[in-house]
Amino acid sequence: MLAEFLGTFVLILLGIGSVALALVGLPGSGRQAVEFGPANWLIITWGWGFGVVFGVYVAGGISGAHLNPAVTLAFAVRKDFPWRKVLPYWLAQVVGAFVAAALVYACYRWAIDAADAKAGLPRDESLATYSIFATFPAEYFGDSWWGPLLDQIVGTGILLLLICALIDMRNVAPLSNLHPFLIGLVVVAIGMTFGTNAGYAINPARDFGPRLFTFFEGWGDIALPGTFGWFSGYWWIPIVGPLIGGVAGVLVYDLLIKPVIRARAGAQEEGPATEEP
Amino acid sequence: MLAEFLGTFVLILLGIGSVALALVGLPGSGRQAVEFGPANWLIITWGWGFGVVFGVYVAGGISGAHLNPAVTLAFAVRKDFPWRKVLPYWLAQVVGAFVAAALVYACYRWAIDAADAKAGLPRDESLATYSIFATFPAEYFGDSWWGPLLDQIVGTGILLLLICALIDMRNVAPLSNLHPFLIGLVVVAIGMTFGTNAGYAINPARDFGPRLFTFFEGWGDIALPGTFGWFSGYWWIPIVGPLIGGVAGVLVYDLLIKPVIRARAGAQEEGPATEEP
Amino acid sequence: MLAEFLGTFVLILLGIGSVALALVGLPGSGRQAVEFGPANWLIITWGWGFGVVFGVYVAGGISGAHLNPAVTLAFAVRKDFPWRKVLPYWLAQVVGAFVAAALVYACYRWAIDAADAKAGLPRDESLATYSIFATFPAEYFGDSWWGPLLDQIVGTGILLLLICALIDMRNVAPLSNLHPFLIGLVVVAIGMTFGTNAGYAINPARDFGPRLFTFFEGWGDIALPGTFGWFSGYWWIPIVGPLIGGVAGVLVYDLLIKPVIRARAGAQEEGPATEEP
Amino acid sequence: MLAEFLGTFVLILLGIGSVALALVGLPGSGRQAVEFGPANWLIITWGWGFGVVFGVYVAGGISGAHLNPAVTLAFAVRKDFPWRKVLPYWLAQVVGAFVAAALVYACYRWAIDAADAKAGLPRDESLATYSIFATFPAEYFGDSWWGPLLDQIVGTGILLLLICALIDMRNVAPLSNLHPFLIGLVVVAIGMTFGTNAGYAINPARDFGPRLFTFFEGWGDIALPGTFGWFSGYWWIPIVGPLIGGVAGVLVYDLLIKPVIRARAGAQEEGPATEEP
Repeated sequence: MLAEFLGTFVLILLGIGSVALALVGLPGSGRQAVEFGPANWLIITWGWGFGVVFGVYVAGGISGAHLNPAVTLAFAVRKDFPWRKVLPYWLAQVVGAFVAAALVYACYRWAIDAADAKAGLPRDESLATYSIFATFPAEYFGDSWWGPLLDQIVGTGILLLLICALIDMRNVAPLSNLHPFLIGLVVVAIGMTFGTNAGYAINPARDFGPRLFTFFEGWGDIALPGTFGWFSGYWWIPIVGPLIGGVAGVLVYDLLIKPVIRARAGAQEEGPATEEP
Repeated sequence: MLAEFLGTFVLILLGIGSVALALVGLPGSGRQAVEFGPANWLIITWGWGFGVVFGVYVAGGISGAHLNPAVTLAFAVRKDFPWRKVLPYWLAQVVGAFVAAALVYACYRWAIDAADAKAGLPRDESLATYSIFATFPAEYFGDSWWGPLLDQIVGTGILLLLICALIDMRNVAPLSNLHPFLIGLVVVAIGMTFGTNAGYAINPARDFGPRLFTFFEGWGDIALPGTFGWFSGYWWIPIVGPLIGGVAGVLVYDLLIKPVIRARAGAQEEGPATEEP
Repeated sequence: MLAEFLGTFVLILLGIGSVALALVGLPGSGRQAVEFGPANWLIITWGWGFGVVFGVYVAGGISGAHLNPAVTLAFAVRKDFPWRKVLPYWLAQVVGAFVAAALVYACYRWAIDAADAKAGLPRDESLATYSIFATFPAEYFGDSWWGPLLDQIVGTGILLLLICALIDMRNVAPLSNLHPFLIGLVVVAIGMTFGTNAGYAINPARDFGPRLFTFFEGWGDIALPGTFGWFSGYWWIPIVGPLIGGVAGVLVYDLLIKPVIRARAGAQEEGPATEEP
Repeated sequence: MLAEFLGTFVLILLGIGSVALALVGLPGSGRQAVEFGPANWLIITWGWGFGVVFGVYVAGGISGAHLNPAVTLAFAVRKDFPWRKVLPYWLAQVVGAFVAAALVYACYRWAIDAADAKAGLPRDESLATYSIFATFPAEYFGDSWWGPLLDQIVGTGILLLLICALIDMRNVAPLSNLHPFLIGLVVVAIGMTFGTNAGYAINPARDFGPRLFTFFEGWGDIALPGTFGWFSGYWWIPIVGPLIGGVAGVLVYDLLIKPVIRARAGAQEEGPATEEP
């Protein structure tokens, strides 16, 4: 659990840190101001990807480095992980995310205050600085909750499908302990393909931990007490969506790929088919 | 065939998803609007590259992960793949691409509608959103069909030439199951060198599957029935060009490199010279 | 010590070179002028990351490739490195950084002069060209020294925490001599997450060596004699902050991760738990 | 020699192709026009880097994949390569570069014509499209030839120094046949640090082969017969500079690093200390 805490801490520290840099750090650093654009998005996608890479390298040797309640749940459904450890892992992940959000805030509060002052917004009306920590759906979804939920299901489904492939030693899983690097690149890829729809939480702890932190630091009016939501009730979507999607991704892999691989390998060797990341 | 389907599905999902993000997701996500530029192109090239990387990791252990009718044909010509399996592979690849296009559409239809509404174009006149799914030649080609065809031949030729090198165990092929990573980088490289001429399909399934899908979703007047083309008859170029180019790429490798390597290695060891990716 | 000198030389040459390219090279190269923006920042972060990658590949086989006084101190505290060698290593690192700054200046002095002339600033008032060599805090910190110091502590703490993970053979450290590549990516990640606050020196030699060089090349009025600081006394922050942060990072790893790994591995094998990078 | 030809062909095809894409392909592809900026530079640096990666993977198993007359000369000086093969290698490299330039021109001539037409320049006055093929010094060098020459010496020196490190099996050279990947990243790094000064030829064949090609395709008035130069006599700088720099880089490695490594390893094993890339 210490490893899950520290790994998730690293993941969220680097991830949220990259959003902070792209939203308030770089524009306010004394460099000439530029509008937010695709190059900022590259910083954010690589930042989250590196967060996963190094979070897994920190925790992988101890806890298997789930770092994500959706991964923990999916592996439990797959019987690769004991159900009794699910809740402790979830707790460690959320606490790690919360502490990481606090440390990013400690480092970036000058930049956040400067950005809010420049925009002329009090903190409790500043969606821009709030979105350093929590995820929001794009405006074009209107009041649809199905759009962002589908986005979270698809994004997390792809994540788990590919994690299953990357740790399946009977498939072409990368060796030399490079699976953490490749798993991080999966998250870069998801960020570049589905990231702008709803902030690609694809991880309940990634959204809920930092969102909880913002509640204590004055983004209260945007995060209405009890909802933490931009529009009422959004907060549950980056929790439920990833949990559904993660299980779906594992099922797709286990139904379409695993049986064939097992059949071919079966005659040759008997043993554990997967190594946890 | 299930593996070919799923691998091509992953490839096209991440690839088209990155185009959707760069064309309608990021500009419409509530961030400040920016014009399409080179940083968007970076997102698209890395997105397609990651699609190949992870498509190969998903399917590589079962089907060899061709994910591309041009690869399948070239390997059959090379006698590395049985001719009787060519058509089934092609079918699985096109179906995987079609389903991936449908899922990207399901996730991005709000963003697509918002972009079309902002541009004031009905869907059947919106080339911008059509080009999320299908490839088109750059305007400077005018009515030349030779330019885009040559582009597709050269691009796919390079792809197959480099795939041959990256899986040739008598050359310096990467070990530790990292050839899927490097093959994906080949596609990033092609995207950064020949991508803007005609959308670097370099894969008949990549263009034909999603183009077929757009026919059912209202881009009909642009994709005239029976042609699916921007200007009449374009649809066959990203099919025929890659098939020719792929065979050409394999021939170049087998004529210029393979004989020397075989001659040198021949005295030392006898055995299969290639491992399928 | 020669290896430490040469490795740090490579690190600083590529790092400062990338800043020079992004600040004065690209805008003055005859291409159309563009404002500094996030894509320039990508060049700088990758440049510093590659500097670390290749600095470690050059020196790794001889000196362990610390290339950073904070790494040397932290490993000494950890008892992985003899105290008596600390000062010689520090000296070699600072000299390597100084010489690298001189060589970058030799190559870029035309570009620097052109940029200063374009801005209409004499050298001793040009913060823009000064910041090619030395780091500065963002304007939003005002006269707070705690902000940049905390930033340096956190950034270097993360660096050392992740280096410990990446060389711990009982964890999932990368094999095939790829740890220099991954350690370089750590620096890319820090640049993308905490880089704009205060220039992410995270290395006393990186800031002090080149800052000393600027003293001899006419940025004197900005770097007041005896202080080398933008505002009086800043120069010590990128020295003290990294030294504190590096030790903190090692302690976090050794308290939270190392005991568990050692306990699990203890029954199986006895031997050195770490390999220096 | 066929391998040297084909490897250099791949290197130059991808490299020049990426410049063509960034200069005339992307702006003319029907996307909204954007000015050349740092994100275009990222495309060019990655394009050249990938060119090296895959050029080495193609030729590495046969010829050692020098792909660069400066590498060939430096290895000959180092006695790692027979002098009698130097001229044949040089010839193969220049021919490979020439043919690659011709193929890029064949694919991009529509885009080049469109860009020249848009700028209202006849081909023999269009430095912009000429610079797709040949390198030029930045304007700020004025009529100094020492600046670009020093730039070429330093850039190629770093290249060879790092190649020596990356193939020295007694240092921490990457295994699993990943040295071509890392050597390509060296070229990305040099492009991001010294690339804008004079186009980072760092390879006589890279500049001379394509420059020769432009002589036949109508950029004649810019490339004055007999000089091929923008200002009279420039053409020799990207030939002589890299040849000097390459030898210097090898000498630095062999004087500072090799003796120590050999001394340490000597007692343990006797054998070849280097593997050619």
